[in-house]
Amino acid sequence: MAVYTEVSDEDLKAFAAAYDFGEIVSCKGIAEGVENSNYMLQTAAGPFILTLYERRVDPKELPFFLGLMEHLARSGVQCPVPLKGRDGEALRTLCGRPAAIISFLKGMWPRRISVDHCAPLGAALAGLHQAGMSYGMKRANSLSVAGWRDLYARIVPDAIEGVEKGLGRLINDDLEIFANKWPTNLPSGVIHADLFPDNVFFLDGKCSGLIDFYFACNDFLAYDIAICLNAWCFEQDGAFNITKASRLLAGYESVRPLTQAEKDAMPILARGAAMRFLLTRLYDWVNTPPGALVKFKDPREYVQKLKFHRSVTDLSAYGLS
Amino acid sequence: MAVYTEVSDEDLKAFAAAYDFGEIVSCKGIAEGVENSNYMLQTAAGPFILTLYERRVDPKELPFFLGLMEHLARSGVQCPVPLKGRDGEALRTLCGRPAAIISFLKGMWPRRISVDHCAPLGAALAGLHQAGMSYGMKRANSLSVAGWRDLYARIVPDAIEGVEKGLGRLINDDLEIFANKWPTNLPSGVIHADLFPDNVFFLDGKCSGLIDFYFACNDFLAYDIAICLNAWCFEQDGAFNITKASRLLAGYESVRPLTQAEKDAMPILARGAAMRFLLTRLYDWVNTPPGALVKFKDPREYVQKLKFHRSVTDLSAYGLS
Repeated sequence: MAVYTEVSDEDLKAFAAAYDFGEIVSCKGIAEGVENSNYMLQTAAGPFILTLYERRVDPKELPFFLGLMEHLARSGVQCPVPLKGRDGEALRTLCGRPAAIISFLKGMWPRRISVDHCAPLGAALAGLHQAGMSYGMKRANSLSVAGWRDLYARIVPDAIEGVEKGLGRLINDDLEIFANKWPTNLPSGVIHADLFPDNVFFLDGKCSGLIDFYFACNDFLAYDIAICLNAWCFEQDGAFNITKASRLLAGYESVRPLTQAEKDAMPILARGAAMRFLLTRLYDWVNTPPGALVKFKDPREYVQKLKFHRSVTDLSAYGLS
Repeated sequence: MAVYTEVSDEDLKAFAAAYDFGEIVSCKGIAEGVENSNYMLQTAAGPFILTLYERRVDPKELPFFLGLMEHLARSGVQCPVPLKGRDGEALRTLCGRPAAIISFLKGMWPRRISVDHCAPLGAALAGLHQAGMSYGMKRANSLSVAGWRDLYARIVPDAIEGVEKGLGRLINDDLEIFANKWPTNLPSGVIHADLFPDNVFFLDGKCSGLIDFYFACNDFLAYDIAICLNAWCFEQDGAFNITKASRLLAGYESVRPLTQAEKDAMPILARGAAMRFLLTRLYDWVNTPPGALVKFKDPREYVQKLKFHRSVTDLSAYGLS
């Protein structure tokens, strides 16, 4: 829930003059997303999204993200595309920040996940992976296994123990295991890397598209599935829902079958994905000043998920064989 | 900036079934308003606003507010109107809260106030006052002079001194003055009572409409002008801009001329309006729990405004003669 930059009507008018959609008749801040400022624009040519990229996004990486959205959409993935101005440029500056206007995507993200969401989600993810194969640009995953030790070192140990006693040791042990056992040779490509429910839109029970590609990067494709297992398949009470997991995997495999190596790696990838979100949530939780407008998510949710994955001894726990 | 209630797609679908606008293809929380949850809906019939009334609004008062919007719009005031379902009802329940769908109003509220905004603002306010004369329902102003002493008593004295040393005494002195000198016999009617810049939309330099009638009530019409003098005519550095004030008043009088008694009362009404917003801001400031999602406004802005009005010795300070 975030609008960090207030855009004045004068600034907006000057910005919009570069585009062909006619007059902007309304511009309202959207209470979604914690990384950027998003506005819903109403124009004569219909609705659009205006995004101002705030400090968490490195401006140098924006061409990768915007180019990816364009490439994916051209390849048949349902996702928003950056709008180009009459000068052919999609990325410009507004209120001193990089900014772009993005096409409007129909649909709503599901507030309550049902098993019926999971197969369409899996199929959409596999479609993204396939379409991403032909994308020309690359971006390393700055939040992958190689970065976790550093991220962990930046969180005050006392604060970690304050979240849960013994958590520092648990994290340390797992980082050790990842250092030795993380897979090295799985099918790779462009992954979304943040495909949580608020980034997946549905309409009439069908997946109507994916949004928010600002964590996208090159990594193991199966790691993207592992992130979804964490983000979509746990119930409110912390229980893992194996039906959701098998639907997700079946949906995925209906488009792109997994290799045996990918299946075998799923427990450690899922455990790693839980670690990644645990660490960033811990970092945000511990470093948020009191009174901040953004409410960060409780890291304890991911402690619980990490513990589940640690307990897995068999692929069947994820509905895999 | 507030969305307090997350509406699930299932709940929304059931709610929308009562209306004729067809399928809702998008529903995004708007980062505006601190009292209610507002969503921008996209439908086949165009955009609408969905409002869920949160705890600050008394459900018993909603018929007054919704009826007023309808009455004003019918009388030619540009403002949103509540949409009626096929059952003829505008007010229903969503996620356990009173909720209504409101028509979409074009325009943007001005982030930077220029003198050019002030005459159209004044004219729109006068138009609202005239149209309100024929509205059948009444609502007392719960935040008028009679309520300030009570509101003040509910704020911890130490907290008031923490905001500014000597502030308690200043407030006390003024409440005493208001008790003796507040006017008793000025033209009355329906006032907006909260016509801050974020409640006034402009398009192409013209006022395109007024929104957010959830403080509307019966009171002196000139008190509504006094609120606008506070909300629109001070610069960022605290200086009162007499040009803005005279444009506002001239715009108002182009539609509804003020009586001499109203003009004479302007200094005390403006001082009272500053007190009203000082007290509510103090109350919110002091009572907001750390980590709350809503960021309340600094009450000191209104200490400064109150002091300006205390210093006024002549109507010409407001551009009046």
